[in-house]
Amino acid sequence: MARTSFDHMNCAIARTLNVIGDAWTPLILRDIAFGITRFDAIQRDLGLSRKVLSERLATLVDDGVLQRVAYQEKPTRYDYYPTEKGLDLANVLLAMRAWGDRWAFGEDGPPLLIRHEPCGQMVEAVPACSHCGERLVASDLTPLRGPTFEPGPGTSEIGAALDRRQAAVAANGS
Amino acid sequence: MARTSFDHMNCAIARTLNVIGDAWTPLILRDIAFGITRFDAIQRDLGLSRKVLSERLATLVDDGVLQRVAYQEKPTRYDYYPTEKGLDLANVLLAMRAWGDRWAFGEDGPPLLIRHEPCGQMVEAVPACSHCGERLVASDLTPLRGPTFEPGPGTSEIGAALDRRQAAVAANGS
Repeated sequence: MARTSFDHMNCAIARTLNVIGDAWTPLILRDIAFGITRFDAIQRDLGLSRKVLSERLATLVDDGVLQRVAYQEKPTRYDYYPTEKGLDLANVLLAMRAWGDRWAFGEDGPPLLIRHEPCGQMVEAVPACSHCGERLVASDLTPLRGPTFEPGPGTSEIGAALDRRQAAVAANGS
Repeated sequence: MARTSFDHMNCAIARTLNVIGDAWTPLILRDIAFGITRFDAIQRDLGLSRKVLSERLATLVDDGVLQRVAYQEKPTRYDYYPTEKGLDLANVLLAMRAWGDRWAFGEDGPPLLIRHEPCGQMVEAVPACSHCGERLVASDLTPLRGPTFEPGPGTSEIGAALDRRQAAVAANGS
């Protein structure tokens, strides 16, 4: 499928979209996370065309997100398992699921629950600070220029927006 | 743009993709989160066509993710601000950013840093349990049928996968 490449954008969100920007891809990764790891089973579950599924799986293998492990010879058939890079995408899927559960289902509740075995409760994922562990709230976050921030199309807009945010934080004395 | 609708899928991830499945949409939401709230500024920053941006903004307003607030009359011009539903999508963007920072940039580091004002440190978002607050690890999570789990295309695959996972958890005695 022809789609816009975001490789030239110096933005972590854009580069993530280069891998999972296609809407089928997160659903394929969801199935694999649930243990549906074979071509025919994924195809049955999602109801997408074999051609599209084949393309998406090949791209995910090329991107280092999935790995193929043969479970049968003549003809060779594969299970698709996530790599470390692919396992780490579970955090994105968990964040998508939490939002969908909150905003896309009525009061009857969501189709799936997730139990967190260490505490035994049904959970949603909430974002926490990798340093202090506190729950992240958007108003507590200040974006700053990083080591590879560089001029480019649109950078003036982002740069000006960062300056405004930092000035507002400084004015609040925080 | 014609794209597959996932409305019929009883899945939180599919329904989130109905809102942000288009690859431009998360980048538009990123700009608005940074305080780039006007049509011309977003267009300059992302370099997408005015037609596409106009369509995406209208869809986000229809979906209740953004609201328009006029800042000028004759002609009327708007700032686009997130609603509560839109603010909550920040969690998805934070998860995308954390993955992109980790996997899509070299050792030179990412283009943006985010400072968590309460602790003063540069942070990535990590998913935590909404109940106990502990960091979520995929191997600790067990998906279960929820209140609106129902038969449909592919449900047999998901149902069988859930049964296998629950059996594995029970066998581990956790």
